[in-house]
Amino acid sequence: MARNVLTPPTRLLLGPGPSNPAPEVSAAMAAPLVGHLDPYFLQVMDETMADLRTVFGTANHHTIPMSGTGTAGLEAIMFNLLEPGDEAIIGVIGYFGQRLAELAERAGARVRRIEAPLGEVIAPERIAEQLDRRPPKLVALVHAETSTGAEQPLAGIGALVREAGALFVVDCVTSLGGTAVDVDRQLIDAAGSCSQKCLGAPPGLGPVTFGPRAMAAVTTRRSKPATWYLDLQLLFQYWGDAGGPRDRAFHHTAPVANIYGFREALRLVIEEGLEARYARHRAAHERLVEGLGTLGLLLFTPETHRLPMLNVILIPEGVDDVAVRRQMLERGIEIGGGFGPLKGKAWRVGLMGTNATPEVVDRLIGELGEVLAVSR
Amino acid sequence: MARNVLTPPTRLLLGPGPSNPAPEVSAAMAAPLVGHLDPYFLQVMDETMADLRTVFGTANHHTIPMSGTGTAGLEAIMFNLLEPGDEAIIGVIGYFGQRLAELAERAGARVRRIEAPLGEVIAPERIAEQLDRRPPKLVALVHAETSTGAEQPLAGIGALVREAGALFVVDCVTSLGGTAVDVDRQLIDAAGSCSQKCLGAPPGLGPVTFGPRAMAAVTTRRSKPATWYLDLQLLFQYWGDAGGPRDRAFHHTAPVANIYGFREALRLVIEEGLEARYARHRAAHERLVEGLGTLGLLLFTPETHRLPMLNVILIPEGVDDVAVRRQMLERGIEIGGGFGPLKGKAWRVGLMGTNATPEVVDRLIGELGEVLAVSR
Repeated sequence: MARNVLTPPTRLLLGPGPSNPAPEVSAAMAAPLVGHLDPYFLQVMDETMADLRTVFGTANHHTIPMSGTGTAGLEAIMFNLLEPGDEAIIGVIGYFGQRLAELAERAGARVRRIEAPLGEVIAPERIAEQLDRRPPKLVALVHAETSTGAEQPLAGIGALVREAGALFVVDCVTSLGGTAVDVDRQLIDAAGSCSQKCLGAPPGLGPVTFGPRAMAAVTTRRSKPATWYLDLQLLFQYWGDAGGPRDRAFHHTAPVANIYGFREALRLVIEEGLEARYARHRAAHERLVEGLGTLGLLLFTPETHRLPMLNVILIPEGVDDVAVRRQMLERGIEIGGGFGPLKGKAWRVGLMGTNATPEVVDRLIGELGEVLAVSR
Repeated sequence: MARNVLTPPTRLLLGPGPSNPAPEVSAAMAAPLVGHLDPYFLQVMDETMADLRTVFGTANHHTIPMSGTGTAGLEAIMFNLLEPGDEAIIGVIGYFGQRLAELAERAGARVRRIEAPLGEVIAPERIAEQLDRRPPKLVALVHAETSTGAEQPLAGIGALVREAGALFVVDCVTSLGGTAVDVDRQLIDAAGSCSQKCLGAPPGLGPVTFGPRAMAAVTTRRSKPATWYLDLQLLFQYWGDAGGPRDRAFHHTAPVANIYGFREALRLVIEEGLEARYARHRAAHERLVEGLGTLGLLLFTPETHRLPMLNVILIPEGVDDVAVRRQMLERGIEIGGGFGPLKGKAWRVGLMGTNATPEVVDRLIGELGEVLAVSR
């Protein structure tokens, strides 16, 4: 039985990602392919690296989109920086912190977790205390915890970690492009994000950056990483080593269309300007909070450390979570369900990339108000 | 400095892949995104799995595109099937066999290599001999060795491997969709391919299939695989377990646009019919060989086991490899350079997917003839 041509519905994507790509980004995904060693593509790779450095706020040469989703980028960080027997301190303020700890453990590390209750964040003193007890190889935090809507403050932590001789790793999957990450200013040694949230490309790439201290750990490893696909030293034979000859050796076939789309997404981010983009995300968040107030809805996350791009909204007593989300989807709007312990108790509304606008917020509040009016 | 909009040149892609996607496939890459848990996307996932089974020639439930390139799919096979200390026999008839061996070693296995000279293949008796000596956990072969143009015969090997109690793994990155792989008929327990060669989608996905014997090895492991991103048991909480409830749990954000494109590519493969598609690839190869003859060019690979979709052509004495490929590219045609020991000594011409046609072959022969006429 022959299949019909693919004809996806049009959705306003207000879940935890993907967000809706700009038309220029979608067009690039369908642009004519060239080979992964074509001189034109090598130039696109260089442009992508340069713009990604700008977005991360770093001068790190080793800044590329990994050929997998955000999770692959984070796994690449753990596989390359950790060796069996190394110790890692991981901040766990929700599901994505637990995932970081799991990635580190699978890379062979012994993990000490610093936990905070759902919605809360970790104070620098708690990290200092653990560093004093025994310095680890690395300390990793989730900047934007997508399961709770909390923004982990980074200020001052990089210095503490560096002083202890450890590497500072940040999961900025949800924050990059929507709020400042500032890799160099925050003394972050390695960071990983994704393509499909605030940067506004389709999912499929895991942008990462590795600073000189991280690369020193990579090049002085006692053993090869267990992964060949995500082995940084092999990858940079293709992406080009800093300073050295720009001779590119095949490692794996780069996802050309995804990198086209990502290059366009980065171009639009830089064209808008980072500060303007952060302000737009912040303004959309504030308008959303105001609108939710008119509907009598409350946010789960304490106001002191709410993420702008990912809003966790408490489901009022007596309202059917699944029914509301289904009705919203019938109206062409995706919102996310609660995650883990918040499943059934909260919705997650993303205002990311092209969707961080007053028009989108107003449409969401209007439609959600109508759906809730008949649901209660 | 703001970047210009991406405007890639149009190339006829006759290297070792990517090939040129059909217009329907490119259109799908730019189609409206839905969320990775959207009911519409869950249906696309099911369709993709079903069509991929048809193309692999298998009834295996566990048949999905991994969220990475073909290499990621092969790494997933090794990470999931092998545990530290396991033994693997790997056939090495070129670079991609060496890569398989490296993936197995990084997964912790002790590897016995069975090698053949470049251009040659491995006789079943040599595998039987190694199996007799000491049965391993798995035996892996490269079906289509892209570095030498050789097709490794598979007939009869699956039975030998099964009789020895081992798993039979096949790298069909270059062959799938261009010549028969027939997973079930060949008693293959796990196979991995790519999206961008004979299947005709952009690069970025690693289609894999795991049969019941392979899944038994996965579910009875003593330890978790080192990879979390490519952990099959976690992945199938999202792709849906066979028979069980089709409740989908988030694992990582699927590359929605790539899966759209891949679903369309598979649809076109099945619409054409597998046998017709193989015949088309075979006919294009024969026409190419004939055309090369008129130019006085010879193939490197012995005629008895030449791949149809990847042709390794000896560069005549006195012809400048790089200059010819550059001039071909200026005429809008990519052909591949030789790989490893064949670098500078051979070209690799892929006739894959949409490019396995008489028109493409004739254009290639015409242009190559003109370039060579001025190069000698």
